[in-house]
Amino acid sequence: MPYVSEKNLGRLSLYRRLLNRLQAEGIRNIYSHELARMAGGTAAQVRRDLMAVGSLGSPKRGYSVRELIESIGIFLDAPHGEGAAIVGVGNLGRAIMAYFAGRRPRLSIVAAFDSDPSKVNRVIHGCRCYPVEDIERVVREEGVNVAIITVPAREAQATAETLVRAGVRGLLNFAPVPLRVGPDVYVEDIDMTMALEKVAYFARRGGAVEEITK
Amino acid sequence: MPYVSEKNLGRLSLYRRLLNRLQAEGIRNIYSHELARMAGGTAAQVRRDLMAVGSLGSPKRGYSVRELIESIGIFLDAPHGEGAAIVGVGNLGRAIMAYFAGRRPRLSIVAAFDSDPSKVNRVIHGCRCYPVEDIERVVREEGVNVAIITVPAREAQATAETLVRAGVRGLLNFAPVPLRVGPDVYVEDIDMTMALEKVAYFARRGGAVEEITK
Repeated sequence: MPYVSEKNLGRLSLYRRLLNRLQAEGIRNIYSHELARMAGGTAAQVRRDLMAVGSLGSPKRGYSVRELIESIGIFLDAPHGEGAAIVGVGNLGRAIMAYFAGRRPRLSIVAAFDSDPSKVNRVIHGCRCYPVEDIERVVREEGVNVAIITVPAREAQATAETLVRAGVRGLLNFAPVPLRVGPDVYVEDIDMTMALEKVAYFARRGGAVEEITK
Repeated sequence: MPYVSEKNLGRLSLYRRLLNRLQAEGIRNIYSHELARMAGGTAAQVRRDLMAVGSLGSPKRGYSVRELIESIGIFLDAPHGEGAAIVGVGNLGRAIMAYFAGRRPRLSIVAAFDSDPSKVNRVIHGCRCYPVEDIERVVREEGVNVAIITVPAREAQATAETLVRAGVRGLLNFAPVPLRVGPDVYVEDIDMTMALEKVAYFARRGGAVEEITK
């Protein structure tokens, strides 16, 4: 399996989503330049990305939509499906559970954790909510490798450490604070306040981004 | 006002959040190396970023926390506060409204839009919900410059076009589809499915990211 960069991987994930939509519309074949236009890239980049998952289109008929979805899946997904955990079942946590519920059968949220006793032992968007004290036990038992952090900023670091101790190796962090973890743990931060402040700043400047200060 | 890159701007937003927390804890002064450790960067970078907002610390006492919060605010915020709109009041839209409600007095969500008649004319997390047909009128009347898109993928492009026609120049896009807008509009994408798929992929490979394929 070849290594790919984070950007390649993001594009493969996007291609799959676009291809799933095309398939639902009954479209069977697609050319690289068509997929490139939908994804906002170039045809050459699409062909390189798809070559990485072992797909070569034909110059005449392009790529088979069904085959592409399959080969991207073999590349991106865990062979036997994968369960993720989420810690922090507030407004944002519940919205994320609703967002992912049933969306991706190969990657689903299998356990939620919260410190609020009124949330514990309930089933929220099809997922059981446990007390945070059970993180290590449940994560080990379920073999969870990936977790989503939606706790307040002050609890995020301790939450990350507990998850990593239990064996988690990938964190999607919504808490607006950088996590300190070892090099064997992959962290992706989604900071919504930062994102909105950036958008507002560049909107006032008319959208243009100039890179002067490095 | 000097131009700054997207990364600079993201860091300034992060520093402000960290500083607000320090101020709430009663801390009055901070050294660049302390802020760097909290933000996951270097002291030299912190000093450069803060110089861009006109703040020079003293080698003896470091920076005044209160003054830093002020000068970052003057740099980042609209002088008289700013209102954002949100289109799509589903699970994710409501969570985002709850997340931002009252959090940032200078940047608040002032209007929500949805096509579902059962949501229209209600007040959700302190914000009035209008029918999507009113986007152009309300955005113009409120002078909204920034909008958050939380509609389904198939509606995102048309929503973006309506918002831009009404004068919006910054979009925070949660719909998992690239938006095609003019160069005078700044778009920041938050794609949660892509983010989770990336985390899961690299978690299986032990967290390490190697950039081989470009």
